[in-house]
Amino acid sequence: MTNLTHPFLDLDGDKLREECGIFGVIGLADAAATCALGLHALQHRGQEAVGITSFDGTEFFTRRGLGHVAENFASGESVAELPGMMAAGHVRYSTTGGSNMRNVQPLYADLASGGFAVAHNGNISNARKLRQELVEKGAIFQSTSDTEVIIHLVATSRYPTMMDKLVDALRLLEGAYALIVMTPRGMMACRDPLGIRPLVMGRLGDATVFASETVAFDVVGAQFIRQIEPGEFVEVDFDGTLRTSRPFGDVRPRPCIFEHVYFSRPDSIFNERSVYASRRAIGMELAKEAPVEADLVVPVPDSGVPAAIGYSQESGIPFELGIIRSHYVGRTFIQPGDGARHSSVARKHNANRAIVEGKRIVLIDDSIVRGTTSLKIVQMMRDAGAKEVHFRVASPPTGHGCYYGVDTPERSKLLAGRMDLPAMREFIQADSLAFISIDGLYRAVGLAGRDNGCPQYCDACFTGDYPTSLTDLALRQDEEAQLNLPVGKVA
Amino acid sequence: MTNLTHPFLDLDGDKLREECGIFGVIGLADAAATCALGLHALQHRGQEAVGITSFDGTEFFTRRGLGHVAENFASGESVAELPGMMAAGHVRYSTTGGSNMRNVQPLYADLASGGFAVAHNGNISNARKLRQELVEKGAIFQSTSDTEVIIHLVATSRYPTMMDKLVDALRLLEGAYALIVMTPRGMMACRDPLGIRPLVMGRLGDATVFASETVAFDVVGAQFIRQIEPGEFVEVDFDGTLRTSRPFGDVRPRPCIFEHVYFSRPDSIFNERSVYASRRAIGMELAKEAPVEADLVVPVPDSGVPAAIGYSQESGIPFELGIIRSHYVGRTFIQPGDGARHSSVARKHNANRAIVEGKRIVLIDDSIVRGTTSLKIVQMMRDAGAKEVHFRVASPPTGHGCYYGVDTPERSKLLAGRMDLPAMREFIQADSLAFISIDGLYRAVGLAGRDNGCPQYCDACFTGDYPTSLTDLALRQDEEAQLNLPVGKVA
Amino acid sequence: MTNLTHPFLDLDGDKLREECGIFGVIGLADAAATCALGLHALQHRGQEAVGITSFDGTEFFTRRGLGHVAENFASGESVAELPGMMAAGHVRYSTTGGSNMRNVQPLYADLASGGFAVAHNGNISNARKLRQELVEKGAIFQSTSDTEVIIHLVATSRYPTMMDKLVDALRLLEGAYALIVMTPRGMMACRDPLGIRPLVMGRLGDATVFASETVAFDVVGAQFIRQIEPGEFVEVDFDGTLRTSRPFGDVRPRPCIFEHVYFSRPDSIFNERSVYASRRAIGMELAKEAPVEADLVVPVPDSGVPAAIGYSQESGIPFELGIIRSHYVGRTFIQPGDGARHSSVARKHNANRAIVEGKRIVLIDDSIVRGTTSLKIVQMMRDAGAKEVHFRVASPPTGHGCYYGVDTPERSKLLAGRMDLPAMREFIQADSLAFISIDGLYRAVGLAGRDNGCPQYCDACFTGDYPTSLTDLALRQDEEAQLNLPVGKVA
Amino acid sequence: MTNLTHPFLDLDGDKLREECGIFGVIGLADAAATCALGLHALQHRGQEAVGITSFDGTEFFTRRGLGHVAENFASGESVAELPGMMAAGHVRYSTTGGSNMRNVQPLYADLASGGFAVAHNGNISNARKLRQELVEKGAIFQSTSDTEVIIHLVATSRYPTMMDKLVDALRLLEGAYALIVMTPRGMMACRDPLGIRPLVMGRLGDATVFASETVAFDVVGAQFIRQIEPGEFVEVDFDGTLRTSRPFGDVRPRPCIFEHVYFSRPDSIFNERSVYASRRAIGMELAKEAPVEADLVVPVPDSGVPAAIGYSQESGIPFELGIIRSHYVGRTFIQPGDGARHSSVARKHNANRAIVEGKRIVLIDDSIVRGTTSLKIVQMMRDAGAKEVHFRVASPPTGHGCYYGVDTPERSKLLAGRMDLPAMREFIQADSLAFISIDGLYRAVGLAGRDNGCPQYCDACFTGDYPTSLTDLALRQDEEAQLNLPVGKVA
Repeated sequence: MTNLTHPFLDLDGDKLREECGIFGVIGLADAAATCALGLHALQHRGQEAVGITSFDGTEFFTRRGLGHVAENFASGESVAELPGMMAAGHVRYSTTGGSNMRNVQPLYADLASGGFAVAHNGNISNARKLRQELVEKGAIFQSTSDTEVIIHLVATSRYPTMMDKLVDALRLLEGAYALIVMTPRGMMACRDPLGIRPLVMGRLGDATVFASETVAFDVVGAQFIRQIEPGEFVEVDFDGTLRTSRPFGDVRPRPCIFEHVYFSRPDSIFNERSVYASRRAIGMELAKEAPVEADLVVPVPDSGVPAAIGYSQESGIPFELGIIRSHYVGRTFIQPGDGARHSSVARKHNANRAIVEGKRIVLIDDSIVRGTTSLKIVQMMRDAGAKEVHFRVASPPTGHGCYYGVDTPERSKLLAGRMDLPAMREFIQADSLAFISIDGLYRAVGLAGRDNGCPQYCDACFTGDYPTSLTDLALRQDEEAQLNLPVGKVA
Repeated sequence: MTNLTHPFLDLDGDKLREECGIFGVIGLADAAATCALGLHALQHRGQEAVGITSFDGTEFFTRRGLGHVAENFASGESVAELPGMMAAGHVRYSTTGGSNMRNVQPLYADLASGGFAVAHNGNISNARKLRQELVEKGAIFQSTSDTEVIIHLVATSRYPTMMDKLVDALRLLEGAYALIVMTPRGMMACRDPLGIRPLVMGRLGDATVFASETVAFDVVGAQFIRQIEPGEFVEVDFDGTLRTSRPFGDVRPRPCIFEHVYFSRPDSIFNERSVYASRRAIGMELAKEAPVEADLVVPVPDSGVPAAIGYSQESGIPFELGIIRSHYVGRTFIQPGDGARHSSVARKHNANRAIVEGKRIVLIDDSIVRGTTSLKIVQMMRDAGAKEVHFRVASPPTGHGCYYGVDTPERSKLLAGRMDLPAMREFIQADSLAFISIDGLYRAVGLAGRDNGCPQYCDACFTGDYPTSLTDLALRQDEEAQLNLPVGKVA
Repeated sequence: MTNLTHPFLDLDGDKLREECGIFGVIGLADAAATCALGLHALQHRGQEAVGITSFDGTEFFTRRGLGHVAENFASGESVAELPGMMAAGHVRYSTTGGSNMRNVQPLYADLASGGFAVAHNGNISNARKLRQELVEKGAIFQSTSDTEVIIHLVATSRYPTMMDKLVDALRLLEGAYALIVMTPRGMMACRDPLGIRPLVMGRLGDATVFASETVAFDVVGAQFIRQIEPGEFVEVDFDGTLRTSRPFGDVRPRPCIFEHVYFSRPDSIFNERSVYASRRAIGMELAKEAPVEADLVVPVPDSGVPAAIGYSQESGIPFELGIIRSHYVGRTFIQPGDGARHSSVARKHNANRAIVEGKRIVLIDDSIVRGTTSLKIVQMMRDAGAKEVHFRVASPPTGHGCYYGVDTPERSKLLAGRMDLPAMREFIQADSLAFISIDGLYRAVGLAGRDNGCPQYCDACFTGDYPTSLTDLALRQDEEAQLNLPVGKVA
Repeated sequence: MTNLTHPFLDLDGDKLREECGIFGVIGLADAAATCALGLHALQHRGQEAVGITSFDGTEFFTRRGLGHVAENFASGESVAELPGMMAAGHVRYSTTGGSNMRNVQPLYADLASGGFAVAHNGNISNARKLRQELVEKGAIFQSTSDTEVIIHLVATSRYPTMMDKLVDALRLLEGAYALIVMTPRGMMACRDPLGIRPLVMGRLGDATVFASETVAFDVVGAQFIRQIEPGEFVEVDFDGTLRTSRPFGDVRPRPCIFEHVYFSRPDSIFNERSVYASRRAIGMELAKEAPVEADLVVPVPDSGVPAAIGYSQESGIPFELGIIRSHYVGRTFIQPGDGARHSSVARKHNANRAIVEGKRIVLIDDSIVRGTTSLKIVQMMRDAGAKEVHFRVASPPTGHGCYYGVDTPERSKLLAGRMDLPAMREFIQADSLAFISIDGLYRAVGLAGRDNGCPQYCDACFTGDYPTSLTDLALRQDEEAQLNLPVGKVA
């Protein structure tokens, strides 16, 4: 299953990948139908599996499937299996557990206090340690998902109310989580204290809706109210009463800046800013920081388009579609012999030779991960007759892994983790290469620059400055170290 | 199955639809694998069904399926069923015969002279009459496809050679056809005398390739040589010998101008011009013919983009993505209640509210067919806060049906068939509306204007000036007239 | 796809196989639903594919599928696709054309005289020659089925009425055919002049029904009227009028005697005799012709049961289920290692060790084809501790192929084609082996014995006495002879 | 999904249904392939779902599916997913939890002590109570299966060894269980103290095998050693060492007598007796207890055959197939109109009219549950012209539900729960009706009669004498009583 948003790049593992999108609605007839539509609008956040759980006042119903929302929830029968006025769902990209149906969310359990369903966007960075402790006490895990840890912690919490049990459980967690929880009493939505992953709230008539991005509200016809604040818990019951609390106290938030760069849809509002406007502003900053004499500005489709528009507007160099993207992708074709050697690239993106030939071009892409795709794109432009190819990147060099729910290659496979700027330029064979600076990026999202003492965003993938401990990572490194002990050494 | 290229518009039947794409290759090991890749590049010309026939020197093999090329021919097993060094295939949009597998091309027959396979892009406008005559002589038809008429005419021709039989058959046809034919002796490719539908020729190492569009050559790594001329027959045998002839004599060609407007991919070369360049030039002409004071030029994605770039460059008004398109479409979702009233539009295109709000915008689309979509798009812009919405169309008003292989609504459903310009503007509720003029269109494709005495293109959908007789249409009108005879009248 | 009636034997190709069953009904609302049920009752005559064609007064509708009737026609939707008061269908075992959907009957064609659908049980022994002649005149064949020859002959016949066209066509045929034909005017049913394949007629309220066997009438609730006579044509129109004729004059009939032995269901009436009673009588004759001292009579399930009951009743030796058959068969399992060496047999039939151990048993089977299964069954009895194993066969030695619609191995693979009785006994390792005599078989079906001058049945598989010419066979033998010409010899 | 063994009766819910079959093997290469074959031989014990778990020395692998073994485990790929020298599997008929994949066994959990997989045949009659207690302590259940209770009890047991944990868990259980358990150390097999459900042990080369019935050993080529004794625990490790223990002390066993009557295959050995011989002996007892003057003994296929043979042998009345069973059943067909009124019966069983007409017949069936089928069968015989129809049943009246893993209708739907013998005869419209007596049944299985003080078998479905408490049943009756409290009464 390919990430269809960015199929070309993805096949080469050459993009960071957001792992999930979540959506919830309470107080609406046929809640599951609206939930399906909302998840469809979040499909770019996860294409491998989808699940929806609904509650009809008495029972919970769940339906899951591999593939896209439209493949699993477009039919009337599929939605009719999910009755009730409350529903929440989840789209996901794969995880370490593989494409196992048991890992497809929402996860559900019958607790002594009643049914409990949870949809989770993010990653718990001490889940492995917590899991070991629970299993030693006799807990039986069904999935390999870190989300199941949350359910077991809630199930064994001794606090009396569900809200207290949940807070009790979350206090033990480290990492990133935006959660939508359903119980027979209503819906809860919350973000981790740093607000690393996004979650927004809206209204649809008398109903309350939650989603990872505002675009889902546009699609279902809901009105965007505000984001859930970092560390905030919102509870909504069936008569629409809404309660909010901040059980973790005040922490300086650090939402993920990569939502502006790539994850969110350009028509979403993230952290109170238009994502499209942020990307265009990045392109303008980039034109100021790294100008070049050229004939055309060419975006790498589709994610490079807003920054390319910004670069063009700031530099005055005309914006042209020098690369045309196919809308029909999906599986990999059998490759015939030599004649079609470049087809794996060409069947997804194709040089617009008539436009590119004989021209000096500025290529704009949103990021460089492994660099393999960038190399192919540069080569494609040269094969089409481009005289010069200048590469400009709408984010700083990505040199560090993410442990908060984003799929990143290990550091040794990140181009910026392996080499410096001149080496990178050489690797992708561009005539010149420039990334936006970290401060330029912060300026483009409306700040004066990065506050290095207390950064306003999580930018660990660029800076290596992780806002939480990474317990499981440390555990794993310890184990690997032991496995590598020299013979004869005392452990 | 949705036309994924233009999913939003298509669902409303609000685009003309090219009905087919064809691809053939001779002289290459594993020809079918290359054929599958070539058809994949032509997927935008037909998404409902696909078929490939190959020949291994002894036998013909055929495999067909509903849906996309990637769904049917991506696997090694599927291609392994199609051995040999010659293969031809076909993608199609549906026809009157419905999605019947028997209508999926290539069509194949065992004739007394040996195997005969044909892939056809176009429409025979006297097929019904020819079919009646054949059936009366005892011919048994298996499909409802007009292409089968060609096979029966070949089977019953008394000429000795296959080439002569084929010419004999084609002389009886009226209408549009680009054909790729396979026999045990090799491959033939030809276009009707007017060259209404496109067909191009290329080389891939020692192999010869044919395709509806040059983009297929880019994708398989072949070199574009030239187009098959209107009325030209090309024969290639297995040692690569190529023979060409013009059995119908000299006729002034009239290729379909709508290939420039919408059907072909922007990175194709049609009738010796870059399609992208033609569309951008249309946008420039439109900016000259119908200027307007505005803040933003906004394309209707994706087909309006090149013209919008041209309009922006000529007018100096900034180009912005005021509408964001979802990459995940497909089936229609169950619509929940009132709250999500606008979702059928919104789940495919979404206003980029942050950019559009408070602005005067020029919307650019490639064409208006029924007008229902245009109305929704205008409304979406107003809902997002646009102050003024000016609509500019990159083709003249589409007021007439096509009978040459393009799916068009009947005239009474075409907006331009029902009303004049002011009424159309009122219908779509734009602040202003303008179409490019017919001469402007001809200028944009590099001519001085339309030669009304002897037009350089088929533009019947704009002008009603059909380049051939329409025998079946006349037959049908006669029958309908008889059915409507007043009681008592002598027939 | 396995023949589930006799799954064990079949997997080894060790039974003759009837190739088809047909069913038709006219004059009944929802004719297709009754047709599906009737075909289901004939499922033992063909398990690989099924098709039904219906006519609603205006149009013909066809639906086909691979597999069983219940898999393709059990649902309301499937039957709803087939409206109308006339329907005919066909179940088939595979043919030389493979499991190709185009070969699945009924075959249908739009002739100049209107729609024409045909379901055929039998085999035309000069089809290949007729086909060559038709193709040379320009006919285009879509299937490899010999039935399509009939349609082309009808289509090109110059007689004026459909009845005359059909008789004109059938006069050219050689071989076996029971046909059900539908035209817009009604239904025709006929048998070849020798009546080799069966066809019976019944009534269901005001409707007329036709079927290969009477069991289909029991299942649909119809009343069995009589068989269609050899060489008889019956026509029924929509008001129930029935016309009958004998266009080929009087010929002494020779129906297939193997219908009594194995093909027909025991609860059918064939050629005016109970099939069950015939089989029991064969067992009785066998007990007289080939008695043996033994403790138990054990049938090879299920087809040997009626003859075993007859043998037990005549001999007084107790009838016991010494072999238990599994009801769950189907695909072949992956065979694990040595330990399960005999499992391919054992998973379908299992010795009832507690009953067999230490006993002298008489095994009764309906026929021996290749003998490989008989060997395994004898071995299974010995492994279970049987003291003696006497094998009795309820048909004469099968030493010749069938060319009339029954799938037989080539003569060199038939046990009785390769060796004499003592060698056969040795091959299957039985303590004794006896077949019923050809006259004993005729006595069991109520005759005084075989009339060798003018046999009352077709028994060519036992005697090699074929009742028709075998034109295609002769053609093929000529070709093979030519291919084997010694080098240097003048052809 | 139909029970294909007894398809006709089953569709009417007119048989008791064994709910499971289990099979395990340790010490054999490709254990899963042998396991699949063994389960295939147990298919009659459960047709709705199947699962196999294997262990390769390091990891456990599980594959499950709905439907038959052959549909899920016949392919090489399916078995290749299950590597290793130990495997166990399960076939099941549905349960209260519906056809949910999560309920398909073997169940598996990663415990702190390592992997733990269990396949269970039987029913825990206090599972609901145990489950409530576990959930209150924070346990999270994933299935609705009572088997999961066992896993949680093992997971939370504080005993040190796996064997002790398992015994500790089982001590809390009430009801029937035959279990096969796998851990990284080897395989355990055990039966509940009363031995209600069967379990046998065999050898296949050096490997040890366990199965619900001996027929599975025949099919995989293994040798039957002995049954697992009631209350016995057998442990086998990877070097073949076998340990056995009886942790529950001595209890008088009470295996299920219905295994002799119907559940087990006739070629199995149950409780040290041939099942076929038991059934034939029941027929003989029945002929003595309830003789009748008649012309034919006719079995209701297929389960009535052995008893009918016994009845015929004892009475001297000829055994004949008066009812022919179709091998092609499965889904229910759409019923056409009046003409085919009886088809739902007729398409599965058909009267052999030629044999039955004008005769006095004794029908033999294994049991009567609801009686609806018996009525139809009697009617079918009369419609076929039978002069008298005497019904003899090879088990006592079934008047009580089973709570030990057999699916029974509630008592109010059991014919013998609703009426006495004369009323039953009237209901099924037979000329006479007799059941074997309870003592006659015990005699047929080799005993002097039923020991009423201490019965040798569980025969609760006939006698209402349940060998264990029924805790969950009592709980449910309490709750229902409370729901029915008259208004105003103090609870």
